[in-house]
Amino acid sequence: MRKKAVCVCSGGLDSTVAATIARREGYELHLFHASYGQRAEKREREAVKEIAKVLHADVKFAEIPFLRALGGSALTDTSIEIPAVSEEALKGEEARETPPTWVPCRNLLILAHACAYAEVIGAEAIFVGFNAEEAMSYPDNSEDFVHRFNFLLEKAVSSRSIAPKVVAPLVKMFKPEIVRRGVEVNAPLHLTYSCYLGEEKHCGVCESCMRRKRAFREAGVKDPTEYAQAKEKAESEE
Amino acid sequence: MRKKAVCVCSGGLDSTVAATIARREGYELHLFHASYGQRAEKREREAVKEIAKVLHADVKFAEIPFLRALGGSALTDTSIEIPAVSEEALKGEEARETPPTWVPCRNLLILAHACAYAEVIGAEAIFVGFNAEEAMSYPDNSEDFVHRFNFLLEKAVSSRSIAPKVVAPLVKMFKPEIVRRGVEVNAPLHLTYSCYLGEEKHCGVCESCMRRKRAFREAGVKDPTEYAQAKEKAESEE
Repeated sequence: MRKKAVCVCSGGLDSTVAATIARREGYELHLFHASYGQRAEKREREAVKEIAKVLHADVKFAEIPFLRALGGSALTDTSIEIPAVSEEALKGEEARETPPTWVPCRNLLILAHACAYAEVIGAEAIFVGFNAEEAMSYPDNSEDFVHRFNFLLEKAVSSRSIAPKVVAPLVKMFKPEIVRRGVEVNAPLHLTYSCYLGEEKHCGVCESCMRRKRAFREAGVKDPTEYAQAKEKAESEE
Repeated sequence: MRKKAVCVCSGGLDSTVAATIARREGYELHLFHASYGQRAEKREREAVKEIAKVLHADVKFAEIPFLRALGGSALTDTSIEIPAVSEEALKGEEARETPPTWVPCRNLLILAHACAYAEVIGAEAIFVGFNAEEAMSYPDNSEDFVHRFNFLLEKAVSSRSIAPKVVAPLVKMFKPEIVRRGVEVNAPLHLTYSCYLGEEKHCGVCESCMRRKRAFREAGVKDPTEYAQAKEKAESEE
């Protein structure tokens, strides 16, 4: 029997590259997507379905209605504005506080769901797209978070189960390197969707779009994305 | 401002005693109950509402529909029988494997929800009824699980938040001691509901009822519970 991996997949760049790496490593893939009230959930699910076809994976969609109702984040509460972010702001990010797009305990909740799924289907690994770039703003993307989660997981499953392990193949990478790695493993980057807003096209100005644009540009890889609104500065640099 | 505690409360003995202890320690109480497809959820919610009144707490109910749909447990899947358990079986429990009433990653999932809630309302503690007796069968009730969870939690919240701490005041106790402690702190034990089946009266023969019965008897405290079916042996001992 082939070893199984649950791949947490938002439909974005990082998690899609991570899932493609899992496939390269010989896992049978089970994509897992969570809807928690994020504005882009519908558009993300479309992306995940397309990515699943290319990766010959099945897909499990989960709802986390409590997080949806809880609010407190610009991603799930339309009364809080999603800030447009400049590249300059991202450059000084070493000192950044967690931004208003933080969703309370989101990765803890998503991973807890993915673990329950992994325990039931007997998956030995849970692949995630956590990376060094987002870890600067979001502590629940860090290598330390992954280590601590795996340490906990040994006690979170039945004594009859072997605890699955969270695998974060991109955890030391910044986004340009992730794009290059994605090209190497032939990840379907053109099918990924990163925008916080959830419109058909990427907005081009939210934090997530800014990171995506910069990643392709700095990787020297042609960006397949159509942006609704291109930042003048970014364009003039291209 | 009074310090706040989220109290994970199933409506059963242990979590109700833990919540009462939190109240004694001066916390403003926010009871938290999760429905994940357990057979007894409706009856549990009724109990939690009554307990909340006595403890002057507010109550938050959460749904975890993914766990409900996942199955794989006698508690959530009516095609799997809930075993009747003898006191003899419970005595040899040091060597017990996790029973069929295990729900995949349940406590991980419930605590992840409670943590998101705590982060949003600014609660500094999350009280749980984990105890040494259930930790023998369920690894996610153990002191080690609590330590590891708290270690993870430091990285699971925003850098703007102070991570709440999971507090398990009963973690070294067996149930008879919990009953005695409950009497000391004047916990509303008569309002608690422990049965796996969810009928109006406690069944009296499931693992949870057996533990409850034994706890009162060994504590030397009059059991306020009306059981539908009293085990002959247990009765003859009384």
